[in-house]
Amino acid sequence: MARLVMKFGGTSVADIDRIRNVARHVKREVDAGHEVAVVVSAMAGKTNELVAWCREASPIHDAREYDAIVASGEQVTAGLLAIVLQSIGINARSWLGWQIPLKTDDAHGAARIGEIDGGEIVRRFGEGQVAVVAGFQGIAPDNRIATLGRGGSDTSAVALAAALKADRCDIYTDVDGVYTTDPRIAPKARRMNKIAFEEMLEMASLGAKVLQVRSVELAMVHKVRTFVRSSFDDPDAPGMGDFDNPPGTLICEEEEIVEQEVVTGIAFSKDEAQISLRRVRDRPGVAAAIFGPLADAGVNVDMIVQNISESGESTDMTFTVPAGDLAKAVEVLERTKAETGFDAIQSEAGLTKVSVIGIGMRSHTGVAATAFKELAQIPVNIRAITTSEIKISILIDSDFTELAVRRLHSKYGLDRV
Amino acid sequence: MARLVMKFGGTSVADIDRIRNVARHVKREVDAGHEVAVVVSAMAGKTNELVAWCREASPIHDAREYDAIVASGEQVTAGLLAIVLQSIGINARSWLGWQIPLKTDDAHGAARIGEIDGGEIVRRFGEGQVAVVAGFQGIAPDNRIATLGRGGSDTSAVALAAALKADRCDIYTDVDGVYTTDPRIAPKARRMNKIAFEEMLEMASLGAKVLQVRSVELAMVHKVRTFVRSSFDDPDAPGMGDFDNPPGTLICEEEEIVEQEVVTGIAFSKDEAQISLRRVRDRPGVAAAIFGPLADAGVNVDMIVQNISESGESTDMTFTVPAGDLAKAVEVLERTKAETGFDAIQSEAGLTKVSVIGIGMRSHTGVAATAFKELAQIPVNIRAITTSEIKISILIDSDFTELAVRRLHSKYGLDRV
Repeated sequence: MARLVMKFGGTSVADIDRIRNVARHVKREVDAGHEVAVVVSAMAGKTNELVAWCREASPIHDAREYDAIVASGEQVTAGLLAIVLQSIGINARSWLGWQIPLKTDDAHGAARIGEIDGGEIVRRFGEGQVAVVAGFQGIAPDNRIATLGRGGSDTSAVALAAALKADRCDIYTDVDGVYTTDPRIAPKARRMNKIAFEEMLEMASLGAKVLQVRSVELAMVHKVRTFVRSSFDDPDAPGMGDFDNPPGTLICEEEEIVEQEVVTGIAFSKDEAQISLRRVRDRPGVAAAIFGPLADAGVNVDMIVQNISESGESTDMTFTVPAGDLAKAVEVLERTKAETGFDAIQSEAGLTKVSVIGIGMRSHTGVAATAFKELAQIPVNIRAITTSEIKISILIDSDFTELAVRRLHSKYGLDRV
Repeated sequence: MARLVMKFGGTSVADIDRIRNVARHVKREVDAGHEVAVVVSAMAGKTNELVAWCREASPIHDAREYDAIVASGEQVTAGLLAIVLQSIGINARSWLGWQIPLKTDDAHGAARIGEIDGGEIVRRFGEGQVAVVAGFQGIAPDNRIATLGRGGSDTSAVALAAALKADRCDIYTDVDGVYTTDPRIAPKARRMNKIAFEEMLEMASLGAKVLQVRSVELAMVHKVRTFVRSSFDDPDAPGMGDFDNPPGTLICEEEEIVEQEVVTGIAFSKDEAQISLRRVRDRPGVAAAIFGPLADAGVNVDMIVQNISESGESTDMTFTVPAGDLAKAVEVLERTKAETGFDAIQSEAGLTKVSVIGIGMRSHTGVAATAFKELAQIPVNIRAITTSEIKISILIDSDFTELAVRRLHSKYGLDRV
């Protein structure tokens, strides 16, 4: 017997028929003798409808009211799933954030989870009851509903799994696992059986949209073994209930992965833009003078490359921002030009950041050189490079995205054979 | 300065534009210096959608889950109205049943209101804050959401007005007041300025659908001056904010109505059916033997007429049931015929109960005779009669409904001049 948290997203609960399918997944685990808590999102489209009403009511609106409105979507799904589970003979009840309680801070609209009291849910596990928990919501110190920000149901599920000391947190989604890269552009992409938390964090941050970054961070901190799998599989197909090796991808601690590859996956994010400041007067505090106002304006600066000038008097500063923020960034830079001190701004959109990710890089050299050589052979011009302990990110023209991803995927031996 | 509860139903909050109109009604009262709590229903159609999902999930479903699902409709409206009020400069916040708390009993799906703690709402009146309260819901002893049954937002509003010791409870609806009879069939029907609680209770029970019967009962018990008015009127038209004499109908204590008419209104309910049991053996307990099984089957028996036989050995028993319950009632009676002891069942649908209502009847004789005479002149056959202290109900063929209502309306001097 194990304790499981199962999480189902919006497309998995889009209508009553899909909710019935979810109930069959739950029944399979209950029949296997497991203690089960289910976390659900709002039915697909509902959150968008509620958010649109808030905006129509007023473009600027009280986040506490937004939370009360938007959290109703998960409330409905939780009740409906409880009803369907009861109808197939499973003892189940719904839990809203304030009923558990799942306490959050007071950052309404994007609250962070504090304490979760899992005591009553665990007590009812003992009575054979399944907990159906409305995701994405908790209760703030002001006794009002708080939501966790978009996609927050993944975070709810992982946090609940940590609080309940669950053996596994299964994230059921519309893909069947985490792939070495996006299969839509690289048909030879493979589904991974396992991926380390750190790697998944990089993959999620760098554009793989399977899981919310926050939920991966939380899973890593609390060591929650998190499993990504498809809700569209037949719930009763062979192997679906295999506790040790179900179909999907396990996100777990590095130690649990016996044969660690050097490179695990290739991630990419399109719609990057590059800004270069020419002949910036090189003096202490210049970086703060440039990036401080950008941060204040909410512009997310990513790769930063600084070339030191020969004379030591001026420097070229290059960095990337999301293409959508380019105009705002340029406007901020022009406005603060006098304090910053530079000669000219050059900017270009239509760029892509390709990232090679793998924990094995820590102990292997030459991983970066392999990427540079492979891209040179295409040839693709490399515009910027940043590295961390377990990833290399390379900025290229977006036109080459698919080709570069496929070539790197092959080169690092990730292709499905 | 006064304290007001304002209640808006589903058609009054059907979309964001309608909610903006509601906000203007609220603003008018706030600007006049009043302390205001607003009670809202779900947006028109939302409750039906949610109920349909519950039924699709399972025809028989846990009332506690139903409550969590269906109460979300009012939750959304309360948040949206709070946002719109804030956007026009009014300090407002939404309150869910569990936040107030508005405590109910544990009869989920049709809960009765217990205690309401209005303390925090009143404290915030002192800070100039408007309370926007989700109607139709409260919190049951099991810490779960309870709903009050369909139309329960009227009841929420009156109960809240009692708890807050409000000077008036304004029920904004899609009609502009309570009429002497249904204006769709009697064009000369007049809007009443005032009606006594007892009369309104009869009107509501007998088919005038302006207010929920429960809310009128509650208003009568707690002496809540309740005002029925239209949400579709221009919120800023002259006289709308007149505290003593706004457009609409005040439901109040008898003493407040200076010139009490003998007859106040004519109500009617179509779709009645009549059942006659012929030659029932007349013995003690026979009524219980007939009506007990009908009550157990959920059949709502209304007018009962018993003719004592000459011999004293048998009797004819006639009563009415809603036409929709007729088949079930006959089936129950046939099944229990052996215990009951009668010769034959006769039944007929297509009947209407017309009721003449007025507190003045208590002190005036001849009111019933006037009705009988008037109907005889049409001529309409009277099938059954029941009376109470303040009403006379007469069962007739439905074909004559409109004609009879108009003739009685004129005869009792109710026509608009």
